[in-house]
Amino acid sequence: MLIQNTTNSFIDTLRHRRQRLANLIDFPAIIWSGGSSPRNFPANRFPLRASSHFLYFAGLPLSNVAIRLEAGKLELFMDDPQPSSALWHGEMPTRDEIAQKMGADGARPMAELELWLEGTATIAVQESATWTQQSQLLNRWVLPQSPPQGIDLELAKAITSLRLTHDDAALAELRKAAAVTVAAHKAGMAATPKAKLEAEVRAAMESVFIAQNMTTSYNSIVTVHGEVLHNEHYHHSLQPGDLLLADVGAETETGWAADVTRTWPVSGKFSSTQREIYNVVLAAHDACIAKIYPGVEYEDIHLLAATVIAEGLIDLGILQGNAEDLVQMDAHALFFPHGIGHLLGLDVHDMEDLGDLAGYEEGRERSDRFGLGYLRLNRPLRPGMLVTIEPGYYQVPAILNDPKLRSKYQNVVNWQRLSQFADVRGIRIEDDVLVTTEGSEVLTAALPNDANTIENLSKI
Amino acid sequence: MLIQNTTNSFIDTLRHRRQRLANLIDFPAIIWSGGSSPRNFPANRFPLRASSHFLYFAGLPLSNVAIRLEAGKLELFMDDPQPSSALWHGEMPTRDEIAQKMGADGARPMAELELWLEGTATIAVQESATWTQQSQLLNRWVLPQSPPQGIDLELAKAITSLRLTHDDAALAELRKAAAVTVAAHKAGMAATPKAKLEAEVRAAMESVFIAQNMTTSYNSIVTVHGEVLHNEHYHHSLQPGDLLLADVGAETETGWAADVTRTWPVSGKFSSTQREIYNVVLAAHDACIAKIYPGVEYEDIHLLAATVIAEGLIDLGILQGNAEDLVQMDAHALFFPHGIGHLLGLDVHDMEDLGDLAGYEEGRERSDRFGLGYLRLNRPLRPGMLVTIEPGYYQVPAILNDPKLRSKYQNVVNWQRLSQFADVRGIRIEDDVLVTTEGSEVLTAALPNDANTIENLSKI
Repeated sequence: MLIQNTTNSFIDTLRHRRQRLANLIDFPAIIWSGGSSPRNFPANRFPLRASSHFLYFAGLPLSNVAIRLEAGKLELFMDDPQPSSALWHGEMPTRDEIAQKMGADGARPMAELELWLEGTATIAVQESATWTQQSQLLNRWVLPQSPPQGIDLELAKAITSLRLTHDDAALAELRKAAAVTVAAHKAGMAATPKAKLEAEVRAAMESVFIAQNMTTSYNSIVTVHGEVLHNEHYHHSLQPGDLLLADVGAETETGWAADVTRTWPVSGKFSSTQREIYNVVLAAHDACIAKIYPGVEYEDIHLLAATVIAEGLIDLGILQGNAEDLVQMDAHALFFPHGIGHLLGLDVHDMEDLGDLAGYEEGRERSDRFGLGYLRLNRPLRPGMLVTIEPGYYQVPAILNDPKLRSKYQNVVNWQRLSQFADVRGIRIEDDVLVTTEGSEVLTAALPNDANTIENLSKI
Repeated sequence: MLIQNTTNSFIDTLRHRRQRLANLIDFPAIIWSGGSSPRNFPANRFPLRASSHFLYFAGLPLSNVAIRLEAGKLELFMDDPQPSSALWHGEMPTRDEIAQKMGADGARPMAELELWLEGTATIAVQESATWTQQSQLLNRWVLPQSPPQGIDLELAKAITSLRLTHDDAALAELRKAAAVTVAAHKAGMAATPKAKLEAEVRAAMESVFIAQNMTTSYNSIVTVHGEVLHNEHYHHSLQPGDLLLADVGAETETGWAADVTRTWPVSGKFSSTQREIYNVVLAAHDACIAKIYPGVEYEDIHLLAATVIAEGLIDLGILQGNAEDLVQMDAHALFFPHGIGHLLGLDVHDMEDLGDLAGYEEGRERSDRFGLGYLRLNRPLRPGMLVTIEPGYYQVPAILNDPKLRSKYQNVVNWQRLSQFADVRGIRIEDDVLVTTEGSEVLTAALPNDANTIENLSKI
């Protein structure tokens, strides 16, 4: 990867991004790449994940370098590889070669960076050795968990405004991530009939990424306990009556992500209760995507999902009352407790390193409503935004057995009827949807989501 | 994993290890587990890898807890899961449940740890949030990259003396890691005929680990450029004349590692030059294993490998002279520049977080000889030690084109003859060998290493 050949159009894209940044700020910025983190001893490290902001402007997954951006120009700060490293790592590209690949306007050794700090803004890198270095060099705390201040905040706002919508080069990478993710989900469905453990299905899916020199963009969820929303265990055995929920997405070598969920029956056949709920979730999914259009508020998409799910559960006799009223009182959140989705780009929750700066329109804040508080995106949609649409239905014991919630919602839930749906612990259907001037394009549309096709794909 | 059931014998093992530590030190020790490191944003994290020292005494891969060891007793410091975490992570075991699983003698909230610090030793965790916390609480620098001092050094020496040889429970885990690694290598060989890229073979191998809920114990090397010793790229296409070198090992859920290398022909058939060199490396491998016996110096095993390789290269006409003389002048290191192996246990280079404290017998230091400096283990062998034996032959451009080395060794290398072996860029054969009272046991013996069987396994 490090030594990939780059093209003129790649360099033009990077220069265009840098120029757009220059149009928004009148001070220099230094963006560090970050380095890898040690695992159990210094020489045994987690794979490098360069900072997304660095990748956006520099394009290459480099370790321990920095770029200084001013007036559209990029200066690379990087040390040439040690001669002794050739034994262990082979011939590495030099600073000048790297500078050329990213279309830099200059290149200097890392030690010179300290001469170029005055008046520069930065963004904290997650990896601790680097944010410590950022803090020391700039003589102020640059902490990944603290909101940026002053010119750092101005820089963060400028970068989020750029990264909110994707250019053609970004979309090309995002389409690659989506395509490989679609293949992985098909592989997971195909592997299910012979699999005894969740882990075996996960292996079939992630090996598709590894074979393409991609990685997961987040820790995969592959579970028969979809009601545990962030389930990162894979030890359960697969039983014929189970639904398997797989939330698995690829990340390309330059950091662009996909994020897709499908839920399929282990036996290759949904039970009638599973199919009924599945179709409620799918109806919400389809209604949301149909509504995506420039100018539409993402919060309204979320509320639409909530309403369609409430309607479906009323039809099934699980909820009682009027759908709008139920959503108003957050009754949908008993079964759909998370947000309808989020921004997607270089990060699977794009730019979440900056808190809600990217996700929430200026002046807006998270709601404290049970049914809205987990919404990660609250902005009007614009062409070029990529969002996930991921409605779900879950029977979360921590919610449904909560005495306060049971009491508050005792008259709107038919608990007797609900008990007939005990074999539906968790369903989610998630696609990656690009906002276009005409409405939307589903980047992951090649992966079927209707119940019959899903059944066929997960049969022997 | 977190919620695995533990057995009485597991708890007995842990208690036995704690008692043996108590026999070696007369002060208390606090061992932190460490936590996960953030990847590109705080909620998207690398997988947890608990500290190996913690795993040795506590047995469970826990995040952000500490154990205090004194006189054979273990006190667990851990916070109960937040009630709100049940929504995202499901029901988590409580402090008391965890304490029971590891056979703790007491359990307290994390906040009470500060009352129990006086006179305690510790070992730095690699993960930065934890070593920062260690330093703050103990009011001294506890840094992963600095050698321990004072009672921390005494603790480190005591722990290394325990971890140098493996008990039955450790061996059971190490055998599991070895068995799954053997299966992965067979899967890699079987996948080669249809693979177009190194990455596809890697995928076939690592998916075997994922399917068993294991991980890699280090970043895999799967490459047709074995001459790059730590090659972590997988983008090369496989050509019929290539040798594929795969250095890939599993790590069990509780952290125990395997480390195995095989080299096989992409075409399913070694060329005559490849087979000749392969057999030289295999002869060194077999000679080393035959010599392993309690009391034997590991450095002598290394020098034996060097001598056998030198002899083989003399027979092939690549080196000229007498094998002992060539080894004395480090001529073997032109083609075999690394050490014959290292300790293996909870870390793939076991206890390398403590530098050479575990690898080198007290009073010994690294040699500055070209042919010895990379040796990671220099101790007399003892029953219960697990070591790798991994001789290799490489044509590393950084070595063979180095003017100083070419000049020094110009009369002992037949460069003309060497040029006929251009299709042998890198070969390594590595197994995991347990020192026993009778000699040795190869834990990875189920994986063939003779050239004919390797050819058969990598054919369609």
